[in-house]
Amino acid sequence: MNLPTLRLKSNCDRRLRAGHLWVFSNEVDTAQTPLTALAAGDEVQVLNASGKLLGLATVSPDNLICARLHSREARHGLDKSLLVHRIKIALSLRERLFDKPFYRLVYGDSDLLPGLVVDRFADYLVVQITTPGMERVRGEIVEALVQVLRPEGILLRNDGGARKAENLASYVEVVHGQMPERVAVEENGVRFEAPVHSGQKTGWFYDHRMNRARLAPYVAGKRVLDLYSYIGGWGVQAAAFGASEVMCVDSSAPALDLVEHNAELNGVAERMSVVEGDVMDALRELKGAGEKFDVVIADPPAFIKKRKDIRNGEAAYRRLNEQAMRLLNRDGILISASCSMHLAENSLRDMLLAASRHLDRHLIITERGFQGADHPVHPAIPETSYIKAFFCRVLPV
Amino acid sequence: MNLPTLRLKSNCDRRLRAGHLWVFSNEVDTAQTPLTALAAGDEVQVLNASGKLLGLATVSPDNLICARLHSREARHGLDKSLLVHRIKIALSLRERLFDKPFYRLVYGDSDLLPGLVVDRFADYLVVQITTPGMERVRGEIVEALVQVLRPEGILLRNDGGARKAENLASYVEVVHGQMPERVAVEENGVRFEAPVHSGQKTGWFYDHRMNRARLAPYVAGKRVLDLYSYIGGWGVQAAAFGASEVMCVDSSAPALDLVEHNAELNGVAERMSVVEGDVMDALRELKGAGEKFDVVIADPPAFIKKRKDIRNGEAAYRRLNEQAMRLLNRDGILISASCSMHLAENSLRDMLLAASRHLDRHLIITERGFQGADHPVHPAIPETSYIKAFFCRVLPV
Repeated sequence: MNLPTLRLKSNCDRRLRAGHLWVFSNEVDTAQTPLTALAAGDEVQVLNASGKLLGLATVSPDNLICARLHSREARHGLDKSLLVHRIKIALSLRERLFDKPFYRLVYGDSDLLPGLVVDRFADYLVVQITTPGMERVRGEIVEALVQVLRPEGILLRNDGGARKAENLASYVEVVHGQMPERVAVEENGVRFEAPVHSGQKTGWFYDHRMNRARLAPYVAGKRVLDLYSYIGGWGVQAAAFGASEVMCVDSSAPALDLVEHNAELNGVAERMSVVEGDVMDALRELKGAGEKFDVVIADPPAFIKKRKDIRNGEAAYRRLNEQAMRLLNRDGILISASCSMHLAENSLRDMLLAASRHLDRHLIITERGFQGADHPVHPAIPETSYIKAFFCRVLPV
Repeated sequence: MNLPTLRLKSNCDRRLRAGHLWVFSNEVDTAQTPLTALAAGDEVQVLNASGKLLGLATVSPDNLICARLHSREARHGLDKSLLVHRIKIALSLRERLFDKPFYRLVYGDSDLLPGLVVDRFADYLVVQITTPGMERVRGEIVEALVQVLRPEGILLRNDGGARKAENLASYVEVVHGQMPERVAVEENGVRFEAPVHSGQKTGWFYDHRMNRARLAPYVAGKRVLDLYSYIGGWGVQAAAFGASEVMCVDSSAPALDLVEHNAELNGVAERMSVVEGDVMDALRELKGAGEKFDVVIADPPAFIKKRKDIRNGEAAYRRLNEQAMRLLNRDGILISASCSMHLAENSLRDMLLAASRHLDRHLIITERGFQGADHPVHPAIPETSYIKAFFCRVLPV
C-alpha cells in the first residue's frame, strides 16, 4: 500500500505503544506531515518521530482526535477483507457468550473497529457510523456484514450526536434488504419489540443486559418503580421476574405505548402501569400522594454528555437518587445506574451515600453492575467503559 | 445506660456523620476523655466536641482505629437484643437473594456489626471475631445465632491475622453443638466439602460466588488452568460447567486432596488433574513443556496485606498475570482476580494491559467482577470492598 503518512512528534508515541488507538492533533509533527494535506476519512500510516510504523489509521483532520488506529500492521488496510476478519472475531466472542443472536456485535475501539457500532437483532442489523474513516468504507461494511451474517436487513442509524462533531450528515437509511418498523429482541428470556428506525440510539440498550439479569431476586413479589423506562427494558423484565406491580415513568408517549405492548408480549400487562411525564415531576407527585415502592430503578439518559456538564450533571444525579430514595419502603432497594462516561463510578457511589445520610438512612451496596460482555472495555481507552449500576439496600439507621 | 464517654475534637465528627463507623485515635479529645481510662472492648458513647451523641461504639484503646460504631442511637447498646436484630436484618437480605442457605450471613461493618463475620453452611455456622468489642459479647453472639438460626453447630475460627493487632488470643473452638471436620457447601449448583476447622479463613470463599457463576460460557468445551486452586472453588465449577479438562495448581497437598474429593462429588474427576507446588514454578514448567490453555484463572491469595507491600505486591501480580497470559492459546481467556484491598481495581487493569502489550497481544475486558451480595459494601468504608476480577479476552494484535 502507498498510504500518506502521519508522523508524530518525539515521545508522542507512548500512549499508542501502551495500547491506545487515538492520535491527538497536538501530537502530530505538522511541519513534516500537515493535517491540512489530508481529507476527512483518509487512511494513513502513523509513524513515530524516528519513522517506525505504529499502525494504520483513518483521519479526522479538523478534530482534536485526529486519527484512530484500526491496525498495528502495515498489511492490514481498512478494506472489506479486514472488516470481515474483525467482524468474525467479534462474532465469535458473542456466540460463545450468548445463547441467542441478540447482542452488540461490534463495539468500536474495543473490537478494533473505531467509529463502528453494530447491534444485532437476530436477522436484522442496526449500524452506527461515527467517523469519516468508517463512513468512507460504508459500502464495504455493508458487504462484510452481508458476507459474514447473511442478514434480512441492515439499517444505518447515522443520526447520533457524535456525527455532528465530525461534520457527517445525519440520516437513517435501509442499506440492505428490508427492515420492519420494530424488531423482536429477547433479553434474559423476556421478549420485546424495539423501534429501530425511530427509537433512542439503535432502538435498544443491550448494555444493561447483565444488570437486568440480576433483577429477579430483588423484585419477586415486590412493588417496583421504573424511572426513565423508555420501552420497558427494566420494568417489563421486573414484571416477568415476578414483581407484584410495576409502574413505568417516561416522558415519551410512543415509548410508553411500547412498554404496554412489550408487557402484553410477556403476559404481564395486568401488573404494569405507565405514567407519562417528566420524571422529577412524577417523583414529587408520587411523594405527595404517599406512594411507596419496594424497589426503585433509576436509569436515566446521560445527564453528563460533556466534561463541562459534570457539575450540573452530578447535581441532577444527586437530586434524582435522593427523590427516588424517598419513595422507598423501610427496607427498600434502589437500583441506580448511569451511562455517563464522565460520571466516575465512585462519584455516583458517594452521591448515593450522601443522599442516604441526608435522609438518615443506612445504605449498603449489594451489587455493582457494568456494561455486558458484548460491550467489552478496551483497557487503554477509558471512554469504552461507561455503564455503572449500584444495587443498594436502604434501611433505617 | 450509663456508658463511659469518648469525646471527639472539634470537626472530627464529619466522617462519622458522613456515614463512616470508625474513630481514629488522633480524633479523640484525650484531655477530656483519655483512652487510657478505657479497657479493650468497653462500650462507650461517642460525642462530638459540643457534646452531641454520634452513636455507641466499642473501643480498642491501643489501636489507631480506637473505636467502631455499632449504633447511632443511645438506646441500642451492644447486647443480645441488638445482635438478634442485626442478624435478622442481615439474614433477610441473604434469604431474599439466595435460594439455599450457603452464604456469608454477617459481614462486619456493612451489617453494622463491626468485628464480626459469620459464614453459614446450612446448619453449621463459622464465626470470626476480630475486635475486643465483639470478643466481649462472644457469649451473646452465640446465643443470638442460636436463637435466630437454631444451628447444629457453631465454630469460632478466631485464628485470623487481624486478631494479633488487637492483642486477641488465637484459637479455634466449637462453642455450640458439634462441627464435622468438613461441611457441605453448594455454590452455583455445584457441590463441595470445605475444611472449616483447618482450611483458609472460614474454610470457604463465598466472595467469588457471582464471578464463578459467570464461568460457564467461557469454559464449556475448553482446557482450563486454575492457579492457587485451594480446594477447587473455580476449578471444580469449571469442570462442572463443561470444561473438557481442568488442571488445578496449589502448594497445599491437603487442599489438592479436597479438589479431588470435590471433583468426585460432582462426577467430574476424570476431567481434572492436580499439580502440587509453587505456582510460579509450575507456570515456568508448563511453559517449558509447551502446554497451552484456553482459559487461565489466576485468583491468588492477597499479595498485598499492608499498604507498605503495595509496590512488591503489584510486581507479583504483574509477574503472575504475564506468565499466565503466556500459556494462553491464540484466542484465550484470562480470569484475573485479586482479594487485596490495597490493590486498586484500575491498577490491576493497567497491569493486565501492560502485560498484554509486553507480549504484543490485544486484551479486552469482557466482564468485571466483584464480591457477591452477601459481602455488601459500606459506601463510606472502602475497606469493605476488596474483591475484583477481570474476565479478559487475549488475542493476537
